[in-house]
Amino acid sequence: MSAILAPLTATVFGIGAGPGDPELLTLRAATVLRSAALVIAPRATPEQDSVVLAIVREYVPSGCEILEAVFPMSDDFGQRASAAAGAADLLAAAAREGRAAVMVTLGDAMTYSTWGYVLRELSTRHVDVPVETVPGVTSFAAAAARLGEPLAEGSDPLLVWPATLPGDLAELLALAPNVVALKVGRTLEALVDAAREAGARVAAVRRLGMQGERVAEDAADLLGGKADYLTTAIVHKEKR
Amino acid sequence: MSAILAPLTATVFGIGAGPGDPELLTLRAATVLRSAALVIAPRATPEQDSVVLAIVREYVPSGCEILEAVFPMSDDFGQRASAAAGAADLLAAAAREGRAAVMVTLGDAMTYSTWGYVLRELSTRHVDVPVETVPGVTSFAAAAARLGEPLAEGSDPLLVWPATLPGDLAELLALAPNVVALKVGRTLEALVDAAREAGARVAAVRRLGMQGERVAEDAADLLGGKADYLTTAIVHKEKR
Repeated sequence: MSAILAPLTATVFGIGAGPGDPELLTLRAATVLRSAALVIAPRATPEQDSVVLAIVREYVPSGCEILEAVFPMSDDFGQRASAAAGAADLLAAAAREGRAAVMVTLGDAMTYSTWGYVLRELSTRHVDVPVETVPGVTSFAAAAARLGEPLAEGSDPLLVWPATLPGDLAELLALAPNVVALKVGRTLEALVDAAREAGARVAAVRRLGMQGERVAEDAADLLGGKADYLTTAIVHKEKR
Repeated sequence: MSAILAPLTATVFGIGAGPGDPELLTLRAATVLRSAALVIAPRATPEQDSVVLAIVREYVPSGCEILEAVFPMSDDFGQRASAAAGAADLLAAAAREGRAAVMVTLGDAMTYSTWGYVLRELSTRHVDVPVETVPGVTSFAAAAARLGEPLAEGSDPLLVWPATLPGDLAELLALAPNVVALKVGRTLEALVDAAREAGARVAAVRRLGMQGERVAEDAADLLGGKADYLTTAIVHKEKR
C-alpha cells in the first residue's frame, strides 16, 4: 500500500469503565465507546463472561468488533505479559487500519488494572500508535458513596491494599486510619477478625452496581455467604 | 400547609465532579445536574471563583439557583462545621420544597471532600431527607492517566497522603512503593528533595484539565514556577 493511500492511524484508548453501574462511566468514556470499531474486554478465565463488558455493552455501536481476552488473575508474569502483548498487538493493528480501538477495564484504568500492562506493551513495541487513557471511578470511591461514609478526610492518609493484608493491621492503622482492602474474597473473615483486635470498624460491599450486590456497614454480615473476588472492604479506625 | 398539599421531599445529591475536565463527569452526575433546582459549589475564599463550578456549569439548566459557599481551607474545625451546617440547611430546605438540590465537589465526593462534612450534617440534623452520593474520578487517577503511568499494580499498596508528608519518605516507600501526595503547593520542592534522597521518582500535574495545566514526568520541572494548591504528585520507587 502506498503511503498516500494508507489510512491515518487511529488512537488506541484504555478506558476505566467504573465499578459496575453503567451510569458511572464518564462522559468521555461513553463518547469514545460510541465511536469504537474494536473493543477488547478482559476476563479472568475462558469460561467466565467479562464483567466489564456487561458494563459498557450498551454504549458499543452495533457492528463494532468485540473480543474477550483472557487475562489470568494469577501472578504468573509470563502468562500476563503474553496476554498483554497479544491485546496490544490487536489494538495497534486496528489503529493502523484507522479503526478506533478500545480496551475496557473495571474501575479506574491506572489503578490495579490490566490496562497498565497493555499500555507498557504499546509504548515499547508500538511507539507510532497514539494512546489515550480515560480514567474512571474506582471500586473504593463507589463503595464509600454507597456506604455513605467518607473514605478519608482532613490530613488522614488513605492506604489502598490490593492483596491479603500483612500481619499487623494495627500497625498499618497507626499510619493510615483509613485502609481499603481490594478483592477481599476468602480473606474477609481474617480481615474482620484483625480489625476487631485492632479496635477498628470494617464495612464491605460485594458486586457493587451488579447482580448480587451486597452492601454491609458491618462486614461481618457478609461472612458465611459465598466469597466473591469483587468485594471491597473499608477499614476505619477512629482517633483517640 | 396541610400534609396533602406538601410537596414530596426531593433527594439531596453530593456529586464528585472529577478533577477538572467536564468530560470526566460521570453520566450519572450529568443527569442529576441537568435536573437540578439548586446547586451549591464550594470555594476557598469569598474572592476566589469556585473551581468546581466551572467544571459543571455547562450541565446546569438555566433557571437553576447557584450558590457559592465559602469553605475555608484552614483546619479550623468550627469554621468548617459552620460552613457545612449552613450548606446542609440550604440543601435540606430546598429538598423539602421538592426541589432537587445538589452539592458539587472537585474529584471524588468521598475522598478528602467537603461533601463528607455536609453529609454528616445532613445525616444528623436532617434525617428525613433522602441523600445520594455520586462518586467521581479522583485527581490522582486522572494524573496517572495523563502521565501514562499506572498508579499501582499487582500486589503493591498505594498510599494517598493529603498534606505535608512526614519526615521519612523512604520509610513510607518501603511500605508502599506508590505514594500520591495531594495539594502539593509550596511543599513540592521538599518532596522532590526527599524523593531524590530515597531513590524514587516524582511526577506531578498542576491544574489538570484546567487553564494553566502543567504535566511533568519529572516534578522538578515544575519548581521555580508559581506554586499552586491544585498540584498532585506521584512518587514511585522501583523494587530492587
